[in-house]
Amino acid sequence: MADDPVSTTPARPGPFPVPTMPAPPVSVVGLGQLGGSLAAALAAAGRAVSGWDVDPAARAAAEEHGVFVTQELTGVVVLAVPLPALGSALDGLRVDPGATVTDVGSVKAPVLAELGAAFGERFVGGHPMCGTERSGPDAVDPDLFRGARWALCLEPGTDLRRWLRVAEIALAVGAEVVPVTAAEHDDAVAAISAVPHLLAAALAAAAGEAGPLALSLAAGSFRDGTRVAGSDPAFVTALVTGNAGPAAAALDRVRAQLDRPVPELVAAGHAVRAAPEPVRRPVRVPLERAALLALGRSGGAVTRRLAAFVEGWTPEPGTPQA
Amino acid sequence: MADDPVSTTPARPGPFPVPTMPAPPVSVVGLGQLGGSLAAALAAAGRAVSGWDVDPAARAAAEEHGVFVTQELTGVVVLAVPLPALGSALDGLRVDPGATVTDVGSVKAPVLAELGAAFGERFVGGHPMCGTERSGPDAVDPDLFRGARWALCLEPGTDLRRWLRVAEIALAVGAEVVPVTAAEHDDAVAAISAVPHLLAAALAAAAGEAGPLALSLAAGSFRDGTRVAGSDPAFVTALVTGNAGPAAAALDRVRAQLDRPVPELVAAGHAVRAAPEPVRRPVRVPLERAALLALGRSGGAVTRRLAAFVEGWTPEPGTPQA
Repeated sequence: MADDPVSTTPARPGPFPVPTMPAPPVSVVGLGQLGGSLAAALAAAGRAVSGWDVDPAARAAAEEHGVFVTQELTGVVVLAVPLPALGSALDGLRVDPGATVTDVGSVKAPVLAELGAAFGERFVGGHPMCGTERSGPDAVDPDLFRGARWALCLEPGTDLRRWLRVAEIALAVGAEVVPVTAAEHDDAVAAISAVPHLLAAALAAAAGEAGPLALSLAAGSFRDGTRVAGSDPAFVTALVTGNAGPAAAALDRVRAQLDRPVPELVAAGHAVRAAPEPVRRPVRVPLERAALLALGRSGGAVTRRLAAFVEGWTPEPGTPQA
Repeated sequence: MADDPVSTTPARPGPFPVPTMPAPPVSVVGLGQLGGSLAAALAAAGRAVSGWDVDPAARAAAEEHGVFVTQELTGVVVLAVPLPALGSALDGLRVDPGATVTDVGSVKAPVLAELGAAFGERFVGGHPMCGTERSGPDAVDPDLFRGARWALCLEPGTDLRRWLRVAEIALAVGAEVVPVTAAEHDDAVAAISAVPHLLAAALAAAAGEAGPLALSLAAGSFRDGTRVAGSDPAFVTALVTGNAGPAAAALDRVRAQLDRPVPELVAAGHAVRAAPEPVRRPVRVPLERAALLALGRSGGAVTRRLAAFVEGWTPEPGTPQA
């Protein structure tokens, strides 16, 4: 049963006398939409949170949200800067040598390669699945993470105690934590993020080619299908090229779908999209890498951390996934 | 300049003493979302409107909106039934032999072939570019057409006086009329309706294939990109297979876009999607087929009908199209 630790540990009702671990301080580097929202949410929850941004306006906005602006970083250091800036985000800042370092980048294997080399077992890769087309400190929203999934990488070399510290921060701002490997993460987001952006771009570009009449007749299905094509092209290009292998493989799977007979393709898409939310089955999962990853693979997530296990949920077997 | 009658006739401010033509009565067959909304909108505008539906509940709902329920059809007869039912929609009903017949189907060349054969120059094909995923009399909304484009087919054999009668109805419920040929219409809607539905289905199906982890991480871009995959599969399949040739050609144009280098594709999609609404240049267009079709091809539309011309708009040359 070691291959399926999730289903062997159904949650039992009862008192939970064990308190969660003491919450470490959090330092957020990059106070734009994601970092600023995280710092503001933690400050609003009464947590000790400091932050830094190269942009004085972003620092001032964070201060208004109760964030202590400093270049001295300790506790859990969250790198919330664009992917190309990750490697240099800490240049000129003073970082506690015991600090745990995490990020919020949209691709994980390349980040793991770069920051894992720099920080070793102190690095835990993360990716909150939220954010909007807006960016910068004006887009800060302390409720941004509420109800969102937050992928958190559990590699063979990840220090589980540090992973739990980062998980605790995600939980503290209302997210649910999905344990993944970097490779699993990158394959999954290729299918649900890189490819939607590519399809939206191709749809918009092809309609532009079709001409003014087509664009003038465009209604709901075109607007929905092209909405993310309005995102910053540099961001989208980085999202796709930074995850090039998985994105190409996921796009090939979409091409194969498009080659199916129309009724079959339409029915298959409808079956996925029209499926109701899965029924959530509460579970307790031991604090072991294999068990946690199995929870993530099942489509489940961690919702609470206790001393020797986490609580979470997994879809009822046989219930639809959407 | 005969090839570009639009740009040669800029609108001049001034009094418009010529009244619009007397409004003919309207009979709507099929009182679901589109037909019921049209009949309700006309009734709300004080127009004489009658209607029929095989479903007694739809008839009762229409009566509550002020529609006179009858099997005797006259004036402009609007066939607002699903595409497969178009050929038999008038079976058992009594139709004034002088009546103009129009439809609201999502594909025009096959409908023109079928109903043009049955009604000759009395038939004018139409397609209001609105409607939602809801259907039936519960989805009736008298404001459904407000601000929408309504494609109206001007074939070489179309009786322009009848075309204007149908256009007048579209204008009366708040739509803007786009003059098109059936072939032009079908090519355009393949790009902005059939293909978005196919891409949404392929995206959803491929993500389903990728598994529960991918679906659990899905956020905004996936939800937007797959929304129309939630539509009734029979409706979507009919939409695509009923316009098979243009849909296949439009899908090939999307495939070609997907083969472009990522930065180029993303930039091209962004240029179309992020373009602002075109600046509307008011124009007067003579009541001639070539001039009206040129208006449609330019991305413009008719907004008002006067005695010897229509008023409308066309994008300012050089302004972006979106």
